Amino acid sequence: MSVKLAVLGHGVVGSGVVELFYKNKKNIEKRAGKEMDIKYILDLRDFPDSPYSEKFTKNFDDILNDEEVTAVAECMGGIEPAFTFVKSCLEKGKSVSTSNKELVAEKGDILLATAKKYNCNFFFEASVGGAIPIIRPLHKCLAGNDITEVSGILNGTTNFILTKMCRENMEFSKALELAQKLGYAEKDPTADIEGHDACRKICIISSLVFGKHVYPKSVYTKGISDLQLCDLEAAEVLGYSVKVIASVRKLDSGKILPAVMPMLVSEDSIIYGVNNVFNAVLVTGDGIDKVMMYGRGAGKLPTASAVIGDIVNSVQHDNNVVSQMWESAENNDFVAPVSELESRWYFRVPIYCDKVVDESYTTDNGISFVTSKKLSFSEAVKKAEELKALAYIPVME
Amino acid sequence: MSVKLAVLGHGVVGSGVVELFYKNKKNIEKRAGKEMDIKYILDLRDFPDSPYSEKFTKNFDDILNDEEVTAVAECMGGIEPAFTFVKSCLEKGKSVSTSNKELVAEKGDILLATAKKYNCNFFFEASVGGAIPIIRPLHKCLAGNDITEVSGILNGTTNFILTKMCRENMEFSKALELAQKLGYAEKDPTADIEGHDACRKICIISSLVFGKHVYPKSVYTKGISDLQLCDLEAAEVLGYSVKVIASVRKLDSGKILPAVMPMLVSEDSIIYGVNNVFNAVLVTGDGIDKVMMYGRGAGKLPTASAVIGDIVNSVQHDNNVVSQMWESAENNDFVAPVSELESRWYFRVPIYCDKVVDESYTTDNGISFVTSKKLSFSEAVKKAEELKALAYIPVME
Repeated sequence: MSVKLAVLGHGVVGSGVVELFYKNKKNIEKRAGKEMDIKYILDLRDFPDSPYSEKFTKNFDDILNDEEVTAVAECMGGIEPAFTFVKSCLEKGKSVSTSNKELVAEKGDILLATAKKYNCNFFFEASVGGAIPIIRPLHKCLAGNDITEVSGILNGTTNFILTKMCRENMEFSKALELAQKLGYAEKDPTADIEGHDACRKICIISSLVFGKHVYPKSVYTKGISDLQLCDLEAAEVLGYSVKVIASVRKLDSGKILPAVMPMLVSEDSIIYGVNNVFNAVLVTGDGIDKVMMYGRGAGKLPTASAVIGDIVNSVQHDNNVVSQMWESAENNDFVAPVSELESRWYFRVPIYCDKVVDESYTTDNGISFVTSKKLSFSEAVKKAEELKALAYIPVME
Repeated sequence: MSVKLAVLGHGVVGSGVVELFYKNKKNIEKRAGKEMDIKYILDLRDFPDSPYSEKFTKNFDDILNDEEVTAVAECMGGIEPAFTFVKSCLEKGKSVSTSNKELVAEKGDILLATAKKYNCNFFFEASVGGAIPIIRPLHKCLAGNDITEVSGILNGTTNFILTKMCRENMEFSKALELAQKLGYAEKDPTADIEGHDACRKICIISSLVFGKHVYPKSVYTKGISDLQLCDLEAAEVLGYSVKVIASVRKLDSGKILPAVMPMLVSEDSIIYGVNNVFNAVLVTGDGIDKVMMYGRGAGKLPTASAVIGDIVNSVQHDNNVVSQMWESAENNDFVAPVSELESRWYFRVPIYCDKVVDESYTTDNGISFVTSKKLSFSEAVKKAEELKALAYIPVME
């Protein structure tokens, strides 16, 4: 008997899941070792022209109460009704794969505990880095490591905008407009531009790697809307490119420090070459040293690929996967404040500044340089005041 | 009761497995969901000073006949006795994780069939790309894709040598000497330099992705020993870097074309930034577009990390993993000859050549240029004769 699936939501990702599943059904079944079919697609809208129109339902209970359905893809987005639907499915022993980063970042601990209790799986490879294998490598392939840091580019929209600004000297507003025109940015681009999207993703990674739920509100998050083109240009001359880096690091104190902010990336770093809408995640551990995964972090088929990868895993292993688990956290007191972040810093100071600095770059916009010593975030703020700095940005180490 | 492991071989990788396992034992057990311990280490040599000296045995039967041992790490290398030992373990239902690329490239089909028959696992993440998650992402995370091409840098030694040649204008022989001094190249460097090591790895990837065993002898393999420094310099001026690329591509004919050879990599490619001993694998599929995995492709702890990741998986899922499977192949007639390879080509022709070419680079060593049109391998050879070319190298597309 074939495994019956349901897809919740028929927007960009949900319709991609259906499309990719039927395109590669034979191969997918071979990988899963079982015959599979999509029995239901849940959406409140009508899709009379869909070749799968007979599978559509507007009633979630059709899916919940059908015992034949053992694996569900949640591609609706948002917290509700996604949370209620996913939790109910898990309570019936149906494994769920989701692309919904907001849901995982806010409610992951609860849903993982539910999946464990009912011996099924809550998978979310698609919620971070789209097509890129990240979640499974982190808890499976790298299970032998003490992972000390994960950092990367987790938002394609801002990376596209920064690439345009850096490479084509395009102003921020023009680059944003182009991103919207190409469908890379939403009409209301706030979640991308201000770093909230990347923040949710680094919360998911932090929770998975360090074992306790990290909430978005505990994470220092800074976007790109006030970046100046002249700083991007100066950074390039100094051998860096500016990227929005989402990172989490284990500190000597035992606390962890997650953060999202623009940083200077050296041309010697493999992250330097990650441009346009591409995402990348660099993992540091005591066995691996450094490993990077790179690819398309969003989009219909890339995200669908990750959802289907998860479904194949649900079908192969229907018992709960223990390595992908984290605890609830009443408070986030294991999260260090950003003031403890230590790095070298880029400063741009006024031309009339009498500070002598090596390897600086002087333009009409000021003198730009990178400190040779590391400064904590608080020290950098103090130094910026002292120097009357026009801009200051940390360097990714 | 804790899961008992055995490690076959206590050389570089085997001793790394023991070291990393005990360093991160607590975390590893948490990921696996079970207590674990190493009960035996097999080696013919004596290690009286090892903190684990009581675990050593010279008798493989101690391991084979101990029913407590359910997972085995094979880190001996070579075909025999590794093949006999691994096969015997699988026939007793003990899952095996290996770092032995020669074994997998020559005998993978037989060992996978044995594992399937006895419902245990034969894992080999460590056999390709050291620390880098490749095997599991290919058959698990990317299971929803029709994968059409896999290409990358699968040998760190040659990549190190080429980086030194490109960046520091070091002659091949000097760079090889340095690699040997740093422990990146063996005393007899043939397997690395001539491409045999990368060939074994692309055989493993080809077999896994396309489902039939591809033998090393079916794969066109060319190394770097006759590369000229002047071609690397010319390539750089033209916007390329020279890398040994191991690749496999599905052709329109349905055949696959695996090959290992030096290629020009454009500075626009993410592979361009992969330098020194680092490896990287770029996967192309219809869902993901392109995904790359990057990291250390060799070394004690990086390789041990991959072996332990596999062991954790064996412990989590003791039933056979169906997605990681390929068939035996009596012959390799599904492998296309290299003459069918199509790409643009780099040529260096004598200065007295009267050919007019755009974007060429002229030095005392000749005129270097890259064709704007794709040529098949056979066409390129013909053109090289026609032009009396001093060198010709394909471009990675």
